[in-house]
Amino acid sequence: MSSSEKTRTPVTIYGQHYIITGTETSAHMRLVAELVDEKMREIRSVNPNLDTSKLAVLTAVNAVHEQIRLQERLEHLEQELSRLKE
Amino acid sequence: MSSSEKTRTPVTIYGQHYIITGTETSAHMRLVAELVDEKMREIRSVNPNLDTSKLAVLTAVNAVHEQIRLQERLEHLEQELSRLKE
Repeated sequence: MSSSEKTRTPVTIYGQHYIITGTETSAHMRLVAELVDEKMREIRSVNPNLDTSKLAVLTAVNAVHEQIRLQERLEHLEQELSRLKE
Repeated sequence: MSSSEKTRTPVTIYGQHYIITGTETSAHMRLVAELVDEKMREIRSVNPNLDTSKLAVLTAVNAVHEQIRLQERLEHLEQELSRLKE
């Protein structure tokens, strides 16, 4: 799909409906929604007293932490790769 | 810091207080909290009618999407690297 096309994907996360718009495929956005839903349920199982809003914030914290970790690993690999190509 | 030590980091995200526990440094967790807070405010500026809970869910969606994108890029680089090392 061309990057200029926008998709509108209806998803359900933790019982709430959302329309996610973006340039990704609907299949990708459904996968993302499923992972967020799973993560929220996982965090709730450890902290059963959290309300939905705090649960979602902690899910976002978790994902951003993972994002930074991957970003660091990516930078490390890119450096290694450019050394090997020299 | 040893990976077996756990930190307890108090943070504020979108006006709510959280204690984040984990094996990461407190500096790292404060950075993560700051990024989540920023992202929530950014999404709110585009969707001013969303409640905190939906805002946090969409922030998590955004971060998980970014996480998958980085994961794919990482796998691609790892394959390239292993070909170069052959």
